[in-house]
Amino acid sequence: MPVRDNVEIGLNRFARRGYDLDEVSLVPSRRTRDVDDVSTAWQIDAFRFDIPLITSPSDAVVSPATAIAVARAGGLGVLNAEGLWTRYDDPTEVYRQLRAASSAEAGPPTALLQQVYAEPVKPDLVAARVKELHDSGVTTAVRISPQHTVALAPAVLSAGIDLLVIQGTTVSAEHVTTSGEALNLKEFIADLDVPVIVGGAADYQTALHLMRTGAAGVIVGIGADSWSTADSVMGIRVPLASAIVDAAAARRDYLDETGGRYVHVIANGRIETSGAIARALACGADAVQIGEPLRVAEEAPGGGVWWDSVAAHPRLPRGGASAAAEPRGTLEQVLLGPAESADGRTNLFGALRRTMAKTGYRDLKEFQRVDLVIGGNGATPAGAGHLVG
Amino acid sequence: MPVRDNVEIGLNRFARRGYDLDEVSLVPSRRTRDVDDVSTAWQIDAFRFDIPLITSPSDAVVSPATAIAVARAGGLGVLNAEGLWTRYDDPTEVYRQLRAASSAEAGPPTALLQQVYAEPVKPDLVAARVKELHDSGVTTAVRISPQHTVALAPAVLSAGIDLLVIQGTTVSAEHVTTSGEALNLKEFIADLDVPVIVGGAADYQTALHLMRTGAAGVIVGIGADSWSTADSVMGIRVPLASAIVDAAAARRDYLDETGGRYVHVIANGRIETSGAIARALACGADAVQIGEPLRVAEEAPGGGVWWDSVAAHPRLPRGGASAAAEPRGTLEQVLLGPAESADGRTNLFGALRRTMAKTGYRDLKEFQRVDLVIGGNGATPAGAGHLVG
Amino acid sequence: MPVRDNVEIGLNRFARRGYDLDEVSLVPSRRTRDVDDVSTAWQIDAFRFDIPLITSPSDAVVSPATAIAVARAGGLGVLNAEGLWTRYDDPTEVYRQLRAASSAEAGPPTALLQQVYAEPVKPDLVAARVKELHDSGVTTAVRISPQHTVALAPAVLSAGIDLLVIQGTTVSAEHVTTSGEALNLKEFIADLDVPVIVGGAADYQTALHLMRTGAAGVIVGIGADSWSTADSVMGIRVPLASAIVDAAAARRDYLDETGGRYVHVIANGRIETSGAIARALACGADAVQIGEPLRVAEEAPGGGVWWDSVAAHPRLPRGGASAAAEPRGTLEQVLLGPAESADGRTNLFGALRRTMAKTGYRDLKEFQRVDLVIGGNGATPAGAGHLVG
Amino acid sequence: MPVRDNVEIGLNRFARRGYDLDEVSLVPSRRTRDVDDVSTAWQIDAFRFDIPLITSPSDAVVSPATAIAVARAGGLGVLNAEGLWTRYDDPTEVYRQLRAASSAEAGPPTALLQQVYAEPVKPDLVAARVKELHDSGVTTAVRISPQHTVALAPAVLSAGIDLLVIQGTTVSAEHVTTSGEALNLKEFIADLDVPVIVGGAADYQTALHLMRTGAAGVIVGIGADSWSTADSVMGIRVPLASAIVDAAAARRDYLDETGGRYVHVIANGRIETSGAIARALACGADAVQIGEPLRVAEEAPGGGVWWDSVAAHPRLPRGGASAAAEPRGTLEQVLLGPAESADGRTNLFGALRRTMAKTGYRDLKEFQRVDLVIGGNGATPAGAGHLVG
Repeated sequence: MPVRDNVEIGLNRFARRGYDLDEVSLVPSRRTRDVDDVSTAWQIDAFRFDIPLITSPSDAVVSPATAIAVARAGGLGVLNAEGLWTRYDDPTEVYRQLRAASSAEAGPPTALLQQVYAEPVKPDLVAARVKELHDSGVTTAVRISPQHTVALAPAVLSAGIDLLVIQGTTVSAEHVTTSGEALNLKEFIADLDVPVIVGGAADYQTALHLMRTGAAGVIVGIGADSWSTADSVMGIRVPLASAIVDAAAARRDYLDETGGRYVHVIANGRIETSGAIARALACGADAVQIGEPLRVAEEAPGGGVWWDSVAAHPRLPRGGASAAAEPRGTLEQVLLGPAESADGRTNLFGALRRTMAKTGYRDLKEFQRVDLVIGGNGATPAGAGHLVG
Repeated sequence: MPVRDNVEIGLNRFARRGYDLDEVSLVPSRRTRDVDDVSTAWQIDAFRFDIPLITSPSDAVVSPATAIAVARAGGLGVLNAEGLWTRYDDPTEVYRQLRAASSAEAGPPTALLQQVYAEPVKPDLVAARVKELHDSGVTTAVRISPQHTVALAPAVLSAGIDLLVIQGTTVSAEHVTTSGEALNLKEFIADLDVPVIVGGAADYQTALHLMRTGAAGVIVGIGADSWSTADSVMGIRVPLASAIVDAAAARRDYLDETGGRYVHVIANGRIETSGAIARALACGADAVQIGEPLRVAEEAPGGGVWWDSVAAHPRLPRGGASAAAEPRGTLEQVLLGPAESADGRTNLFGALRRTMAKTGYRDLKEFQRVDLVIGGNGATPAGAGHLVG
Repeated sequence: MPVRDNVEIGLNRFARRGYDLDEVSLVPSRRTRDVDDVSTAWQIDAFRFDIPLITSPSDAVVSPATAIAVARAGGLGVLNAEGLWTRYDDPTEVYRQLRAASSAEAGPPTALLQQVYAEPVKPDLVAARVKELHDSGVTTAVRISPQHTVALAPAVLSAGIDLLVIQGTTVSAEHVTTSGEALNLKEFIADLDVPVIVGGAADYQTALHLMRTGAAGVIVGIGADSWSTADSVMGIRVPLASAIVDAAAARRDYLDETGGRYVHVIANGRIETSGAIARALACGADAVQIGEPLRVAEEAPGGGVWWDSVAAHPRLPRGGASAAAEPRGTLEQVLLGPAESADGRTNLFGALRRTMAKTGYRDLKEFQRVDLVIGGNGATPAGAGHLVG
Repeated sequence: MPVRDNVEIGLNRFARRGYDLDEVSLVPSRRTRDVDDVSTAWQIDAFRFDIPLITSPSDAVVSPATAIAVARAGGLGVLNAEGLWTRYDDPTEVYRQLRAASSAEAGPPTALLQQVYAEPVKPDLVAARVKELHDSGVTTAVRISPQHTVALAPAVLSAGIDLLVIQGTTVSAEHVTTSGEALNLKEFIADLDVPVIVGGAADYQTALHLMRTGAAGVIVGIGADSWSTADSVMGIRVPLASAIVDAAAARRDYLDETGGRYVHVIANGRIETSGAIARALACGADAVQIGEPLRVAEEAPGGGVWWDSVAAHPRLPRGGASAAAEPRGTLEQVLLGPAESADGRTNLFGALRRTMAKTGYRDLKEFQRVDLVIGGNGATPAGAGHLVG
């Protein structure tokens, strides 16, 4: 197994040195290109997208309606099959409650999140939501957790899914249990007709093992957004730039070992600006999975509040909810511009296109080779770059 | 003697590069495991504990009653034999005074701490407190300082102690004095019937020498909590991750040199969250010695205020006292959950168990081999991770 | 091609380690010198300057009048041929509007900047402004963008320009387009009678290629001032100290390959204090291009507000505008002293002269060899060093 | 010449990596010692001191009276021969004015400092002040600048000086001038009957050259306190830990080249706590030159305000003045304790003694060998460590 730079933290005990996305930057180099000559298209299995975006399966930003809107803007919306839309017939009132408990200063408390997610998931509702998406004609994708994959998959599949996302904080290809029955990912995927995206993975090895399960895409990162407390609660931190690079190395090795199967690497975790999207792709990701940046879209069901499902864990919540942010325009404006502010929070994929032009790359696959630099001041512009809320 | 990474700070003068716990993180890897299949048990000498916790001997969190409560929750409570409970017949009024001098913004002033600790220690009270603990039926442990070991040990031992903790900021196996009589740790321990835990030590060499005194456990770190000023006052800083790793190397070398004596390494210093506990154990500690995190337990005698005994030094105080924190639940909730917030401050050992499951380890000894990474943003979630108070 | 220090950010993917100006400092060494024996003179092509200053082509600080004032103080003023002065007959009202929308706390909003720059550039006005400068008798220079060079150059040249500055955020010698017509810099410069300064460039290779176009000077850096958001919006960051050093290496290699053509390296980006000017020159720059520091001059047309033209981009603004700063004296005082405050914001080039004296260097070319050190606390003096506004 | 660790900041341009005092810490090691067995004594030439302290020649803390008080507490007070006491017959009113212009939030403005120091130095007053010190019976020392050494030395010497301090921001053994007459340090010192301390120097080479002038002591560092803006104004920064180590290497080499002349290394610059004093000595300094920490003494003439003479420079001030701090006790308490707070700001040399005991060293020369570590969190205790004012 290939080995990365090591640091000796004490006698004979080593740690890898990992880099986060904001430590890495792109270097414009010899060539520039017209912005109109650049393509940001991405294709996984038979599905083609104008922009390399799949959404986080967060109730704060993804409802059936916004999943469809994302698709129409060129990306892939992923609904959480274990979220509010499958626990409640009509979650409108729950959203209202969470929004009412938030302000411009603070988000809803952990206890309230724990309470609204205590309501059980209804398999019937899961099927109904998938059908709603499917009937709209867009590429349909939902997320289920590894724990509930066996139970929920039938409903999901029969309702007409295009892509299945099996996602937990960390997912391994080898789950050990003494309780008898664990999901065997490899067998499960082999039996399936639809392509699967699976994750998160945090290192080369886990990514490679997940690729070997037959997945079409592997999510890299544990979804640690700015409100994640995986660090304080579990001592777990995934420097994302390094994790993406390592997963891309696994992709290359797996491509070689299979004589040509290309598994997509999808980056997930504190990707909040167009600059971070560019960095993630530059490190080798094929697409990004983002949620929090979409909360400023007028259509966001959470009304500007952000939370990840892990913030609602009944015994060990591992993240908080954000205060409410002001809307910044329609989802399309947030994704495709034009931007009326300079903080990297709107025109997310228009900015990507321009970055590719300034650095001289024509498509995303080429762009993965852009020159990188470590170091330099993080720009902290006065009154920009930090989203209020 | 093995040598760690060195930095040349100037011509021919080298310093070791040390890492703090919060610079090191755990990497989930190939395997995951059911949380119910994980054990957090720890055993030292004949004493077995469900959780690898021994308390700091701080009056802020340990009274005879809370020592017993800690034991019942699965850990080891250590009462300070030179603290308020052995200086005052009934320290209730002193606690009231310290609490009254604190607020949500500031802790009691140094001068007040110096004043209440100016009252002499009464050997009779020492014996009485030990007896009280012993009679409760729990594993009994008290802390004495190296300076007063000779004077106080008889009272402590005859009252029925199970484990003796000899602890100062820094303790060496070779104390040089011209005043005639210094504690010879090796001889003292050899003559003793009860196992001894001794420290703090800051490097490989001191840890190894303390192991050679016959101690059952060695405390690593100088107890530098967030209020410690050892750094400003004495220029002394112990990057704890590196110190733990080095002490674990001493443990391995001593195991080899004795053909099988395993001395436990107990980490002590700014371990305030469940994430930090996981990091300390991942670096090689067998258990953690913590105090400050327990102050949010409803039973804490300090009522949410935290101070270490070094904050009360008559001529050179080397730490401050915290403001008062709000209670977060019973001691059992703080230690074993469930958590109603996401900041790593409650369900401390439930979180450890889950971390071990997510990284695929079954017991603490295996968990010491978990993959580590250096780098990555310290998660600073909005409104979480930092205890108000 | 020479290669700089590399960091492995993950398996087989490397990034160069770059340093920013504020990470690098000067070390006084063996020799000192009288301040009156030091020269800060700089010459490019036939033009000699007392101080190594060319202004950023920002409307916030450069009007025709201030361009003339800068020249009289010994530097080179560069007017933006695509700024307010060539969009409006009389931009006084526009300046008033921008100033009115600013306060001591916040600058004018992005939307207002986008609006005032939506007015088209008038080629007639371009010619008139150049003529005004030319008639004043000072060395005349204006900036045009690569996109509009072909269109605007004739007007500029016939009106009597001395030096032409072709400047965009990033300029390459090889712009690829499918739309048919791109500026061929090499041919354009070869046909020209006046010397050209071109940039910005961010690395050795781009700098070398731009030198090969026949330019007299190459601008290094992307003009990222403190309000730049290139980092958040595009993921692009140029650690300036390293970029200058690399461009100076290109200068040396190009000098060798041409047997003697010396192309000047001009540093541009977050150079806000006399200390930063000294650092940029010490790293190998022949001159600095600065704008923001001039906004505290009484003559600054923006009245203390700062913005770069990129802040007004119609679809993807990449910077903000500063709040209004209090004036600190005349332009001459700001450039040549005396200083009545200690924050490195006034007497910018008097300070440079004294630094050269304290480190023992007689002229700028020698000064490029001064000893450098990495590390050390950034001095953050109470109440100094940070310009209010 | 020996060479330290180098960093390649760009192609073929290197910078030394320097460390500041607060990056380096002491590691308690194998041995401990009784605090009463430790000596902090220091001797330079024929003069012996109980504590390794010489004061900065700052008017804020040194009057003739406090110079005497420092001597009585065991250190060496150094009066500035070019400060307020030699510009004014009675500077009481000037001190009152400066104090009146200060508050707990801000110090006196630069312009006021420039104004009060515009008054010329009177050679008669210089002689009178030296005589006053001499007559008190303490070891007498004053500071003169290299520029005025030739003019002022006669008055100083004939009035009965014991030690002469020739000090500027940076002093070299080779000052180049075209104006005709520069101080030749070597000849000047050779002709002198009293020992000379000279500096500041920032690197090995300058320190070595200054040692070769015949000086008894060399000051290392440019006196950059927390209010210094040498960094912003001149781009000059001296990472002090590395500078001390390098000067100690020069001391060793000079000792060898002369077969036994030991020149003392005196550290100067942002040494504000007892921890920093311990660090400076641990890096190899024989003594520390400090000023700012003495401003909290009741006797300080500045009444809690701090400024360095460089803050009053007429054309290029390079530092600010502090706000007024509350007194913390008598000068003796500040230097020798006991401490009633835990921030390293009182009992400065009592703390040093205890640090030496905890790390097992008997005297200062031995203590220069203490183990060092790089890294670790800077302790930032809540409500301690940072002097208000």
